[in-house]
Amino acid sequence: MSEPLAYPKTKSTTVNRYNARATYDVKAIHSIVNESSVLHVSFAPDAEDPFPAVLPMIGTMGSYDYPSAGLDEPLDCYLHGYVSSRVMRLATSSPQGLPVTIAATKVDGLVLALTPNAHSYNYRSAILHGYARIVETTEEKLWAMELITNSVVPDRWKNSRVPPDSAEMQSTRILRVRITAASGKSREGGPHDEPKDTTREDVTGKTWVGVVPVVEKFYEPIPAADNKVDELPKYIADYVAEANARAEGYALNAARLP
Amino acid sequence: MSEPLAYPKTKSTTVNRYNARATYDVKAIHSIVNESSVLHVSFAPDAEDPFPAVLPMIGTMGSYDYPSAGLDEPLDCYLHGYVSSRVMRLATSSPQGLPVTIAATKVDGLVLALTPNAHSYNYRSAILHGYARIVETTEEKLWAMELITNSVVPDRWKNSRVPPDSAEMQSTRILRVRITAASGKSREGGPHDEPKDTTREDVTGKTWVGVVPVVEKFYEPIPAADNKVDELPKYIADYVAEANARAEGYALNAARLP
Repeated sequence: MSEPLAYPKTKSTTVNRYNARATYDVKAIHSIVNESSVLHVSFAPDAEDPFPAVLPMIGTMGSYDYPSAGLDEPLDCYLHGYVSSRVMRLATSSPQGLPVTIAATKVDGLVLALTPNAHSYNYRSAILHGYARIVETTEEKLWAMELITNSVVPDRWKNSRVPPDSAEMQSTRILRVRITAASGKSREGGPHDEPKDTTREDVTGKTWVGVVPVVEKFYEPIPAADNKVDELPKYIADYVAEANARAEGYALNAARLP
Repeated sequence: MSEPLAYPKTKSTTVNRYNARATYDVKAIHSIVNESSVLHVSFAPDAEDPFPAVLPMIGTMGSYDYPSAGLDEPLDCYLHGYVSSRVMRLATSSPQGLPVTIAATKVDGLVLALTPNAHSYNYRSAILHGYARIVETTEEKLWAMELITNSVVPDRWKNSRVPPDSAEMQSTRILRVRITAASGKSREGGPHDEPKDTTREDVTGKTWVGVVPVVEKFYEPIPAADNKVDELPKYIADYVAEANARAEGYALNAARLP
């Protein structure tokens, strides 16, 4: 067995605090991205503007060249969402692409400790650096549209009206980000208080400590007024159940760890 | 009655797409920030690095000068989290402060339409631009620490060991961001398909359309192994129930709108 793949540590992606919580493991980082319903994509400000631009986008990891690649293998990040004309210009004009930072964070619990300073979140967070290009060939764009649609609900693509018509193909912009470095961070477990507080009965006797688990939960799907399919299809019901069980299992396990 | 306060539209915060979904309303934007458990804070890259830096942080809106100010009034954004030495240097060295972009996005539902192109999310999203400074006086820092702690669970501050000791005060960094511009965007309602699909019985007869509501839900709090308070305090139980009812109400209402 070879070592699991890791992203290179660069000066700007090396985690400097709580290093025990840091990871450069490719599979861990790709999983955080894929389990995040929304990503924040930042790129450098315009010359006349000091503020980085940030777009909320839907994204998922994938490899067009090796579609069967696993989460532990090299993957690109495919992004869908509103692409401003400035991003379009930058992501098509330079041969390397537009440098972007992709951020994904999931909160798994509120960690309530004896003193405010020791309060924390259970969470999983990933920061990825890479170069974004607009996907140009019809083949790759179609492949990426299917990948992203199925990342929202597995099998949704083939269970809806496909393929997109030419107007839809034209109006859809997909960004492919070649990842050059990335880091992840996570915390799990209960509160970690210091002896200065745990030894004080006046503090421990009145302060409830523990974790409030947090789960991004899917509720019972609600049909649209003009829905014509009476029964909720199994592929949707199964995904709702499976995703909820996974998310609940993660958050509750994280809360119960020491 | 005067008009509700609105943030100025700047070139870089003006929403160019789906303008009907855009808001510059101060109260709407402040509410999105306060209901987000995590914020992504971006600032411009180092000279030798093309990638913006992004930090996940906890934050809440507030006014130290007018502590009773409502969400519809001018407020700063107070941020807590890991502050890198570079941010520290930049946010203390320049008189104006470090330009940052704050992003908050909540997903409220998966909107499943007849064709992938018409798929969407119900969501609320805010982007704020401002200048970050490190809070320096003890009085403002203490006030902000209480504000942020109580933004996680109301009344938690007074129900835990306070005040922080001098080591805790020293090690805690709070950023105060003076907001100069901001915009919000939201979507609610069911799928919006086009006649080219809604008139096709072969499509409507096989494609379930509707919304899967998404709620960031608090589960039953789990006491730590060394918790000494037998019953979950009412202020925590009440908050869990109230926050869940509010989040569920929002997502279910958004799903049922046309």
